[in-house]
Amino acid sequence: MKTAIAPLRIGVVGLGRLGKRHAENLAYRVPGAALVAACSPLEDELCWARDALPEPRLYRDYAELLADAGVDAVWLVTPSSLHAQQIVDALRAGKHVFCEKPLSLDLAECERVLAEAARYPHLQATIGFMRRFDPSYKDAFDRIAAGQIGRPFLVRSQTTDKNDTDGFFVRFAASSGGIFLDCTVHDIDVARWLLGKPRATRVFAAGAVALHDGLREFGDVDNGVAICEFEGGKLAMFYASRTQAHGNDTHSEVIGTAGALTIGRNPRANRVEIYDASGIRNECTPNFFERFEEAFLHEARTFVAAVQSGAAAQAGATLADALEATRIGVALRQSLQSGQAVTL
Amino acid sequence: MKTAIAPLRIGVVGLGRLGKRHAENLAYRVPGAALVAACSPLEDELCWARDALPEPRLYRDYAELLADAGVDAVWLVTPSSLHAQQIVDALRAGKHVFCEKPLSLDLAECERVLAEAARYPHLQATIGFMRRFDPSYKDAFDRIAAGQIGRPFLVRSQTTDKNDTDGFFVRFAASSGGIFLDCTVHDIDVARWLLGKPRATRVFAAGAVALHDGLREFGDVDNGVAICEFEGGKLAMFYASRTQAHGNDTHSEVIGTAGALTIGRNPRANRVEIYDASGIRNECTPNFFERFEEAFLHEARTFVAAVQSGAAAQAGATLADALEATRIGVALRQSLQSGQAVTL
Amino acid sequence: MKTAIAPLRIGVVGLGRLGKRHAENLAYRVPGAALVAACSPLEDELCWARDALPEPRLYRDYAELLADAGVDAVWLVTPSSLHAQQIVDALRAGKHVFCEKPLSLDLAECERVLAEAARYPHLQATIGFMRRFDPSYKDAFDRIAAGQIGRPFLVRSQTTDKNDTDGFFVRFAASSGGIFLDCTVHDIDVARWLLGKPRATRVFAAGAVALHDGLREFGDVDNGVAICEFEGGKLAMFYASRTQAHGNDTHSEVIGTAGALTIGRNPRANRVEIYDASGIRNECTPNFFERFEEAFLHEARTFVAAVQSGAAAQAGATLADALEATRIGVALRQSLQSGQAVTL
Amino acid sequence: MKTAIAPLRIGVVGLGRLGKRHAENLAYRVPGAALVAACSPLEDELCWARDALPEPRLYRDYAELLADAGVDAVWLVTPSSLHAQQIVDALRAGKHVFCEKPLSLDLAECERVLAEAARYPHLQATIGFMRRFDPSYKDAFDRIAAGQIGRPFLVRSQTTDKNDTDGFFVRFAASSGGIFLDCTVHDIDVARWLLGKPRATRVFAAGAVALHDGLREFGDVDNGVAICEFEGGKLAMFYASRTQAHGNDTHSEVIGTAGALTIGRNPRANRVEIYDASGIRNECTPNFFERFEEAFLHEARTFVAAVQSGAAAQAGATLADALEATRIGVALRQSLQSGQAVTL
Repeated sequence: MKTAIAPLRIGVVGLGRLGKRHAENLAYRVPGAALVAACSPLEDELCWARDALPEPRLYRDYAELLADAGVDAVWLVTPSSLHAQQIVDALRAGKHVFCEKPLSLDLAECERVLAEAARYPHLQATIGFMRRFDPSYKDAFDRIAAGQIGRPFLVRSQTTDKNDTDGFFVRFAASSGGIFLDCTVHDIDVARWLLGKPRATRVFAAGAVALHDGLREFGDVDNGVAICEFEGGKLAMFYASRTQAHGNDTHSEVIGTAGALTIGRNPRANRVEIYDASGIRNECTPNFFERFEEAFLHEARTFVAAVQSGAAAQAGATLADALEATRIGVALRQSLQSGQAVTL
Repeated sequence: MKTAIAPLRIGVVGLGRLGKRHAENLAYRVPGAALVAACSPLEDELCWARDALPEPRLYRDYAELLADAGVDAVWLVTPSSLHAQQIVDALRAGKHVFCEKPLSLDLAECERVLAEAARYPHLQATIGFMRRFDPSYKDAFDRIAAGQIGRPFLVRSQTTDKNDTDGFFVRFAASSGGIFLDCTVHDIDVARWLLGKPRATRVFAAGAVALHDGLREFGDVDNGVAICEFEGGKLAMFYASRTQAHGNDTHSEVIGTAGALTIGRNPRANRVEIYDASGIRNECTPNFFERFEEAFLHEARTFVAAVQSGAAAQAGATLADALEATRIGVALRQSLQSGQAVTL
Repeated sequence: MKTAIAPLRIGVVGLGRLGKRHAENLAYRVPGAALVAACSPLEDELCWARDALPEPRLYRDYAELLADAGVDAVWLVTPSSLHAQQIVDALRAGKHVFCEKPLSLDLAECERVLAEAARYPHLQATIGFMRRFDPSYKDAFDRIAAGQIGRPFLVRSQTTDKNDTDGFFVRFAASSGGIFLDCTVHDIDVARWLLGKPRATRVFAAGAVALHDGLREFGDVDNGVAICEFEGGKLAMFYASRTQAHGNDTHSEVIGTAGALTIGRNPRANRVEIYDASGIRNECTPNFFERFEEAFLHEARTFVAAVQSGAAAQAGATLADALEATRIGVALRQSLQSGQAVTL
Repeated sequence: MKTAIAPLRIGVVGLGRLGKRHAENLAYRVPGAALVAACSPLEDELCWARDALPEPRLYRDYAELLADAGVDAVWLVTPSSLHAQQIVDALRAGKHVFCEKPLSLDLAECERVLAEAARYPHLQATIGFMRRFDPSYKDAFDRIAAGQIGRPFLVRSQTTDKNDTDGFFVRFAASSGGIFLDCTVHDIDVARWLLGKPRATRVFAAGAVALHDGLREFGDVDNGVAICEFEGGKLAMFYASRTQAHGNDTHSEVIGTAGALTIGRNPRANRVEIYDASGIRNECTPNFFERFEEAFLHEARTFVAAVQSGAAAQAGATLADALEATRIGVALRQSLQSGQAVTL
């Protein structure tokens, strides 16, 4: 645990619901990390930082944070539309970057960031596909790598949220990129990761508006299904939903020539089972925060360890991974809208 | 399925709820069986037999049934207090006998029947511990016999009923023999069967009245727990309950030196799982009829096949097994009442 | 159980593995049925019938069976390519018809049968989609009908077989119609049935050859995935596989606006769980015979009861249902081969 | 998270396997805690502390640690036989004390510590029954408190370890106190905690030596079963084992008048399920470290928070709880040896 080398000095940017979680992890639970700065344009978020974090330097302006020579790395938990430019700016300022997904909803933007990052090979730049760090997903990955299911050729993966009667995501629909770029992008990354990063060749998507008619004006749906074909005869099936009754049910399955693995098929909230007149039941993880609490923590620890050891390979999803996820997500959206298969 | 030999001509005695089930099985679902007669002192039961069964000869009196030369075997589903004498009478009349459990609540009566039966070795006499014929219990038995769990040394087994607010079993308490002789007797037979029929050496029991105060006057409880020691360092733990919220939850576990098996640990009603705001759940088997429907059928088929093949060994629990179950059950009741361990 | 009306006299046609099962059910386990005739061109199958069935009249030739005035209904368990004409012939001979799926792999043939059947409205004609009679599928159907999951809008369903290293289905590939018409046709029927029989509007399919390269020359795959869009914004996702390691894993899920149901998600062989050094496990149903044993029985009982009561509506999948299943299956095969979505 | 008050300065005593876990938690994962000192008589443990912990002051001698005025609390992870005197010494030195279970295997010793502790009401003294801090056990406790299962009256609880072929616990048998005082003591505390701390009135225990004959000379067993009666008609059943094949299987069940809860009934290692030729399985938690990793952390956080807030009530099991656990454990051992029920 203890290390002779100096702690990685981190500035967190964006202190919304998820930003706060990241900030607390970095401040208190990541060996080798020092959360030295926080940035937000919102006064109440800065107030929270003042109270909850160990005396970070506070900035309203991202440029000021980047100018802080006492910051080694920035941790971006900002609106998606800002990610690309903020990453570029951070790299130019000589900072390592962790950025929440997605890299960008725009393919050209993604490519621009990759081109820029290529100029800073000594800097770590990682996109936060946290599922890779969930202990169960990681266990599945390791089993596959050990050959336990033979050659994996099919992934089925889903991201489904408990229905939010408040309809936050409807108001968010204009900028979310649609259900496939917002939710399925995680499943796309999981499928590529578990299948050995094959190149996608063709996709088809369809959807339904089950409950939230307000999505129609954005061409979006609250339930989406998709098939993705990869080179080498590999396949993925995706399901995304905003309308589940039982909770956040994020699970995946990978099928190989000699066996299969499921990860999280029953999204149990914990180890309790309840026996009553309705039968035997378990409650479910209410949201992705609860489900992936450990994953966020391992993700941060891995990033910090990777920077400190110089081993970029182990830090999580690369910018190139994020570009591919966006590329497939964009194709899914296009297929949903056209009703046709889209060749990549 | 088809057999050249003549069908076994059976007379069913007692047409209550369970008797009707047995009668329908024997009439329609047991190859080699012909249900030719039915006996009940109750007019409505005989009416039911006339409507639902394939033209059986009907008797109000058991002696008349026994005098029917066209009956090869009797199937006793009568009150427990009648079992012993009815078995003796049947054997003396030259009939094979299947009798629902228990053989008798009285040890001396049990022994009297065994002595009498010894005079008729060519006649089949079986007590209906149907759990031995449940496909899952049978699968567990076969796995143990094949050595899959090493040497079995501990059985945990329970018989727990959904709470009956009507309190039938309270009114029945005077003659039921108490919770251990009424319910646990099945678990005792399961434990002996799965552990290789070791001799019981000592028992201890305790109990609680959770909901049904009316039991107190009979020295009975609605929840009972017990430990049974067998020779050779084998053990059993029992639980019986009349007050479960979720259904009939009859399950068993057998632990060996190299592994363990559970049978029916989640008493699923079927293969459906329900996802809703309360989580993910399955409903449970409401009662032992539903749970052991298949077992009752296999039990009847096995009895008939055993008589026809002359292979008595395969017909289910013997009178000696039933005697042992009663002996242990009586000791448990004695322990409950005395608060002391009872040595057998 | 007992009925005053005369038994339905049935002739079974085809006594292969599945035919034998049907024959035994009809002979011994279906109240109101009398298996009076059996037809097969194979001597050993007729020998089996002679030994195992209750003295049926035996025919080598289907026309002779149809000429038997003592036969009220025929039960076709013959090669798929014969189904259409055999149904027509049976109807013309005045017999009720139960026919195993599929009606035909050829749409024109399906339509020809429907046109012919329209001339015999008094005759029952049912295609054997047995899943509708599985108690768990039936329970799910009833829950949906009772509104327990709100409005159902998405079905996910799969038919996956344990890998057959013998490769029977490869040799069968020339006539099977491909994986979607052979396997997924069941899931198509399930989806239509659970979603309220909506009209399919568009499909997309993809596939992989995981293990059986011999399928390539037939344009077939051993793993197929598909999406089906229905009118009214309803959706289905299908998966079919010939290469599972753990057993026959046939399960379905239906998602509604207020909840979801899964049917058979873990294809448990029985109620036993095994605890050993590899963890805690259950074995799985090895094949569809084991999984749907009860369904085949209920299917036969329902057919017989429907004929006897004249209530055609309750006898299972109609010819029109079978036509739709074939229509969608043909479109899936076309999509697999073209790589394009197919509009219906 | 952040608090204005000074951190609690802790000295850990004993750096074996479990001591190291506690030390790392206190050093890096407990807000408000500062691990300032470590004590061990073993050079290699002190070396580990030097490398792995944040510059603690190191002591070979417990008295020296107690003399360190910069230590507010001691954390005892030492051999059981030392606990009682070390707690007394700590209290006399004015330190708060956290001590791993058991308080003592000797009842008189337990009582001596309680008497002494009564003189220092301002000092926190807690025994480490960590199960109370496991999120699932805590959830069950909260549900019971909320009345979700009516009145709880029966707890079934087990502590079973994966078989250790190395036989560590056999060598440890002379000082462990036997299986009930070593393992079941946790279940005793769970039962008392979930049932509302009723007074135990009578116990009965039995056991078997399944694999480790070396235990016989100590009068110990490798599998033990027990029943405990409490006042008010409450009951507990316990099972302890050293010989499980599948892993550490620590689980509990509490049954009430309106429902029941199980906690950890399937000791899943994580959320992965494996599908292969052996069926569908999950691996199990290999040992109590893995199973209760989170519990140890919450336990430490709660202790620190309790000291800092002065709210002793929330700090976990009291010395009085520990005394009761030992009292019942001693009675169980006595019952095992005598074959008689023991009245308390």
